[in-house]
Amino acid sequence: MTLDKVLDRIDADLDASLERLFAFLRIPSISTDPAHAGDCRTAAAHLSADLASLGLSASLQETGGHPVVLARSAEEAGAKRVLFYGHYDVQPVDPVAQWDAPPFEPRIATLPDGRKAILGRGSSDDKGQVMTFVEACRAWIAVTGSLPVPVTLMIEGEEECGSKSLPKWLAANKASLAADVALVCDTSMWDAATPAVTTALRGLVYDEVTIQGPSRDLHSGLFGGPARNPIRVLTKILGSLWDDDGRITLPGFYDGIEDPPADVLAAWRKLDVTAENYLGPVGLGEPAGERGRSIVEQLFSRPACDINGIFGGYTGAGSKTVIPAEASAKISFRLVKGQDPDKVRDAFRARVRELLPADCRALFTDHTGAPAVGLAWDLPQLSAAQKALTAEWGREALLIGSGASIPIVADFKQTLGLDSLLIGFALADDRIHSPNEKYDLLSFHKGIRSWARILAALAG
Amino acid sequence: MTLDKVLDRIDADLDASLERLFAFLRIPSISTDPAHAGDCRTAAAHLSADLASLGLSASLQETGGHPVVLARSAEEAGAKRVLFYGHYDVQPVDPVAQWDAPPFEPRIATLPDGRKAILGRGSSDDKGQVMTFVEACRAWIAVTGSLPVPVTLMIEGEEECGSKSLPKWLAANKASLAADVALVCDTSMWDAATPAVTTALRGLVYDEVTIQGPSRDLHSGLFGGPARNPIRVLTKILGSLWDDDGRITLPGFYDGIEDPPADVLAAWRKLDVTAENYLGPVGLGEPAGERGRSIVEQLFSRPACDINGIFGGYTGAGSKTVIPAEASAKISFRLVKGQDPDKVRDAFRARVRELLPADCRALFTDHTGAPAVGLAWDLPQLSAAQKALTAEWGREALLIGSGASIPIVADFKQTLGLDSLLIGFALADDRIHSPNEKYDLLSFHKGIRSWARILAALAG
Repeated sequence: MTLDKVLDRIDADLDASLERLFAFLRIPSISTDPAHAGDCRTAAAHLSADLASLGLSASLQETGGHPVVLARSAEEAGAKRVLFYGHYDVQPVDPVAQWDAPPFEPRIATLPDGRKAILGRGSSDDKGQVMTFVEACRAWIAVTGSLPVPVTLMIEGEEECGSKSLPKWLAANKASLAADVALVCDTSMWDAATPAVTTALRGLVYDEVTIQGPSRDLHSGLFGGPARNPIRVLTKILGSLWDDDGRITLPGFYDGIEDPPADVLAAWRKLDVTAENYLGPVGLGEPAGERGRSIVEQLFSRPACDINGIFGGYTGAGSKTVIPAEASAKISFRLVKGQDPDKVRDAFRARVRELLPADCRALFTDHTGAPAVGLAWDLPQLSAAQKALTAEWGREALLIGSGASIPIVADFKQTLGLDSLLIGFALADDRIHSPNEKYDLLSFHKGIRSWARILAALAG
Repeated sequence: MTLDKVLDRIDADLDASLERLFAFLRIPSISTDPAHAGDCRTAAAHLSADLASLGLSASLQETGGHPVVLARSAEEAGAKRVLFYGHYDVQPVDPVAQWDAPPFEPRIATLPDGRKAILGRGSSDDKGQVMTFVEACRAWIAVTGSLPVPVTLMIEGEEECGSKSLPKWLAANKASLAADVALVCDTSMWDAATPAVTTALRGLVYDEVTIQGPSRDLHSGLFGGPARNPIRVLTKILGSLWDDDGRITLPGFYDGIEDPPADVLAAWRKLDVTAENYLGPVGLGEPAGERGRSIVEQLFSRPACDINGIFGGYTGAGSKTVIPAEASAKISFRLVKGQDPDKVRDAFRARVRELLPADCRALFTDHTGAPAVGLAWDLPQLSAAQKALTAEWGREALLIGSGASIPIVADFKQTLGLDSLLIGFALADDRIHSPNEKYDLLSFHKGIRSWARILAALAG
């Protein structure tokens, strides 16, 4: 079978793959530091040359910032094309004194528990992950002379400094980026043994409300009792947002939300996520979300609301007997697929106005509003990728959600109309953005093999 | 009738009384400024000499700070003695450029509405008020050769800088200060036509609570839902403190509180205190206290609770998706007679603990706790003074409460066992502590006459 030959080739070629990764890691492509602008361009050119050597049409695309590496395999009429995304830029290395070895001199080390790992800045985030895909392509081409599906690689150089040039460049290059699905390799496995596809990213509505009462600060001795206290008004409003079951009480808040399919829920139930192991490490003990929903559901498939900041009156040391003129809070809602950010914001503001005494005013500041991104559970590429990952790792690949936003996914959907499969092989202990960043050798090796399988599966 | 002769003497001597007040006002006895320590001592000596000239045994009492002027009329076996309190020190005059005339060059001016007033620092607070009593004594002595009741005057020099030396001095001089009742002249009339005795000062319990949840700040995307949010816990607890009728829900909170007598309530009902004229000037429109209680009751005879400060999480500009490790609030309770500060504090803390999730902690800081001070409604000296004031002003003297604390009143009660009648003739527009401080000429003149009547009434 062809796939087996490709996998064998990957195994046999691992040392050379590592050498190529090391050469890439040695380029200090720190995107946020203007002193490293030349290194960013060098890294882009290095990668572009490597992709060209595979027979792809590769180029550096000028964006106004650091260039994008764009590489395309030959057109194949009727075949479904995949767009692969990663980034070649890395985080700064400060504090450099905390590194056990120079950050841009990659090496293999053995972790205390016996795992082998690649050490160096960018080993996990994201050069190592990018190279898992490049090496998978290389193996396919070496064995068969071509790729199972047409592939476009788009590797940017500004992910670590906000991808400022990207949306405009994306919009201007829709034709070159046309594909059927996107593959984004910048996420983690569930744990060291369990692969995962991140299928849902929660959206976010972030609002700030200021309740204004008296026209000036009042002495609480002279006015306490008859005078309206904006902090009291604010706490009453905020206290109304949840019921005793931890559900958010805004009308229509849960409208449009669908539960994941039974098999996904069943897989989540099998995960060993408990209050003890998830909340214990951060000093907590009981799930605070919706009663009757597991911690995994509360994180992956259910919306949440948090008060992220509150302030009003006297906040210094000691005491001051003041009734303040105003009080404010910053409130955010994590949304899931099916929820409309505008409707959530409107419902929150309506609640504030409903509970607002006639002699107070409410001022609002809209900090952000973005819908959740969620793959259709029956997306054919999703089940293909999941099966391929399961085959490689010998453990069922999980479909998971993530609370942290990944802007490129929304941009792909909005600008290119593309669904993204987020598949990565990083681990929670990779120390990305920190000294001594590492990438497990197993992540690298089985990551390459995983992509080889996924490419085959997507061709299926 | 002797009192009429005394009142006539006061009227006839008014210009001389004013001259004596002006001489007192010319001494810049700013107690908080070390550069004026000599002036404070000069003012004390000036007053002591004046009181000695009336035949009182007067002295400067060393306190470690600015001296106390102590003056006593001769002992009279079996007669009830009154202790009069005031202060000779004044506030600083900054910003001096905002004064229409030099602050220590007192003069008579006509206000825009035609009222005559004494202008100068200390004219109202408190030299002018002190001299109303001194001049009343002078008139009684001039006409009858003695005072209707034995009198002790205690005029301190550190009221405007915290009376730091006073409690110790009081405790060391109980014998010299022994009396049956105290008269404190440092308060205001109800309005320019209506005299008042302040009979109740609300007490204060001021507590700070910090709710601790996670052991560190958390990312609200990665933890929002299952992770306990201390701000949410805090707002829920604070929101539970009031019911829909504006009553405080702590068990036993209202225990021990008695309503004022019917005649006092009836007098309060006749006052023209409305939401419009009391709350309107500070930008509010509806009374926020207990439903069914008038604004006057809410201020004078009912307790209150205010949140004076609240803070937690991100409070800067913009947004941050954080679940903070902790959140804090400063809460104060204004107490009335019958309430025990310790019980109120305990009830508040018990409520916090009752609503505290098992994985959170509550830390408390006790900022202060002082009981309310309230005269017995049937205190004989109270009705005597009220009748005397009513006779002088031709309008029923009100018995009112005050939310602002006056520490000397608690000290008199605690150290000397004395009830205090707070009677003063200041007005809300006197601009005490501000540039262009004034004291109505009518306050001064009728203030002297009022004390002459009260001294006679207390002898009765």
